[in-house]
Amino acid sequence: MKKFYIAKSRRLRSTPFSSRIESQGLTAYTTYNHMLLPAGFEGLEKEYFHLKENVQVWDVAAERQVQITGKDSAKLVQLITCRNLTKSKIGRCYYAPIVDEQGKMINDPIILKLNENKWWISLADSDVGLYAKGLVSGLKLQAEVSEPDVNILAVQGPKSFKLMEKVLGQKINELKFFGFDYFDFKESKYFVARSGWSKQGGYEIYIENREAGLKLYDELFLAGKEFNVRPGCPNLIERIESGLLSCGNDFDNGDNPYECGFDQYIDIKSDINYLGKEALVKISKEGVKRKLMGVKIDLDKIEITEEKPLQNGKSLVGHLRSAVYSPHFKKVVGIAMIKKEYWDKKTAFELEINGRKCKGSVCDLPLV
Amino acid sequence: MKKFYIAKSRRLRSTPFSSRIESQGLTAYTTYNHMLLPAGFEGLEKEYFHLKENVQVWDVAAERQVQITGKDSAKLVQLITCRNLTKSKIGRCYYAPIVDEQGKMINDPIILKLNENKWWISLADSDVGLYAKGLVSGLKLQAEVSEPDVNILAVQGPKSFKLMEKVLGQKINELKFFGFDYFDFKESKYFVARSGWSKQGGYEIYIENREAGLKLYDELFLAGKEFNVRPGCPNLIERIESGLLSCGNDFDNGDNPYECGFDQYIDIKSDINYLGKEALVKISKEGVKRKLMGVKIDLDKIEITEEKPLQNGKSLVGHLRSAVYSPHFKKVVGIAMIKKEYWDKKTAFELEINGRKCKGSVCDLPLV
Repeated sequence: MKKFYIAKSRRLRSTPFSSRIESQGLTAYTTYNHMLLPAGFEGLEKEYFHLKENVQVWDVAAERQVQITGKDSAKLVQLITCRNLTKSKIGRCYYAPIVDEQGKMINDPIILKLNENKWWISLADSDVGLYAKGLVSGLKLQAEVSEPDVNILAVQGPKSFKLMEKVLGQKINELKFFGFDYFDFKESKYFVARSGWSKQGGYEIYIENREAGLKLYDELFLAGKEFNVRPGCPNLIERIESGLLSCGNDFDNGDNPYECGFDQYIDIKSDINYLGKEALVKISKEGVKRKLMGVKIDLDKIEITEEKPLQNGKSLVGHLRSAVYSPHFKKVVGIAMIKKEYWDKKTAFELEINGRKCKGSVCDLPLV
Repeated sequence: MKKFYIAKSRRLRSTPFSSRIESQGLTAYTTYNHMLLPAGFEGLEKEYFHLKENVQVWDVAAERQVQITGKDSAKLVQLITCRNLTKSKIGRCYYAPIVDEQGKMINDPIILKLNENKWWISLADSDVGLYAKGLVSGLKLQAEVSEPDVNILAVQGPKSFKLMEKVLGQKINELKFFGFDYFDFKESKYFVARSGWSKQGGYEIYIENREAGLKLYDELFLAGKEFNVRPGCPNLIERIESGLLSCGNDFDNGDNPYECGFDQYIDIKSDINYLGKEALVKISKEGVKRKLMGVKIDLDKIEITEEKPLQNGKSLVGHLRSAVYSPHFKKVVGIAMIKKEYWDKKTAFELEINGRKCKGSVCDLPLV
């Protein structure tokens, strides 16, 4: 597929780490929340194998935070997600679908509870801050919505634990999955969560001070030499195999959270109040007619820029939304919205790519 | 400056015209409203001179529409803009700042009134639809917010009038600036506004049917041969010289509409109700301490990816936000947020670019 350059401008915001990562072999960017997000270095497969065996530092500052503070902040945060946050704890992360009043997906962020009146919504790619601002104004809530200058560095991969221990001390080992706390490095404190957009283990460091962030960035690469550290970015192969969904790729505002398989994050039984609850109750009663599933396709390469129909003869099986060649499966793997009558795992389908027909089959998520 | 590829995916949506324009010499993309926006062909200066003398067809589908319908649609549209739309007319376009409750800029769209209960907000780059959805839910308004599959083709340049007359007939000549109407081509009707993001004259065609859109696209290039038509895109040189502001580049959610020079689009005197009115009344009384102005800089090239401080000795004059080399002025021209004490046109400043100091001066907008 023909390649195109990205035209940079102030509107596609740089991150505190852009100039460093650009000098470390970056080749491609995507954009995310009006910000540059590194998207390629030495090649997708090389990066995939390296991530699964070593440790990478990712500039994921584009995962912007919507900060909600004030007396009504908990009420507002609950209002925009179908996940029950009533029993949420300070110092914990919550993966939570954000839905609109029609029960359709707006975002799938991690929500961090800093204290009863301070929350961060760590975003996928949409302006949830504007949704929150509309609600604050409409409901006259006592809540402030802002985008603080918080820039995330992810440290991902099996050797991330050793690297972070070396840099931030043994205390980091006490951090449980989806917990967060502050850790010291030299004269600064760093907000660290045990999270990240891979299934290879690791941390996300929420950098609140740019200068301190750059010091830590450099230290991670210095201290990381013995762990074969490299700059990296969310890896398409790893995330599809692991079944990590991508907002805008695998689902969008046309889909509801049941269709995305988010059932465990939807509370329609308790008396919590959120937008879209009525719609989700109705959907739950009726049952969904399609859902996101994995697929395997007999191809050795693919590039998906729009959804592709999957056919079984003349019948539509569903739509392929993300796909990539997997060196593990030695074929293309993907994520597709599959119609209910084809949820049976053995379902075979045909797909046309660049005028060429090929075959594939439906499977569960995650693929590995 | 080092160049990077754009990593395509479904999330950065293609347009109905992507495959055509990619085969017509496209070299670079930017993204805008979660969509690909063509950003370069044969070179900025060549495209600039061509646009000023001929006619170009632009794929600006990324100027997405927020459609507002329903009984409360007029109320909702007025609620999000400080421009008085009380006397707005069906068939007319209105350039209108969208502000939040703090009176800060969210977007600067063109608002089109299709009828009393149907409006399109033709967006710059932010999810105004989510802001509107929050308000609809919060205020329990009878309004529906959606993003219809409307994809804009802009036909820009002095020969756009002849080309559009040739394709859509003489009736197009009756269309006044910022008016819109339906026009026929073969079996289809096309929604055309006399508008566009250049000062070289032209139209924007709001394509509501993809197939019909592609037919018109091809016809514009076929019929346009005699007018030296070329594919193009918003031109950085032309738009800065013309003083056309870019949301996200020249201003953002930290700026208010007075600072952007939008005074004529701010109504604080009548009794209309909109968010941010109280804040804007206060700002108006106090007067702004900075505003967007033009600048000229003694350089023969520049690339701006973040705002740059402008100094007068040890004093800060303001911040440069967009800039480009202008073949007309034979120096760099730009748009900068300038502090009040430096609004005097003769103010000289220094600027450091890549470690090199250079000089410039403040001037009015537009530059030409």
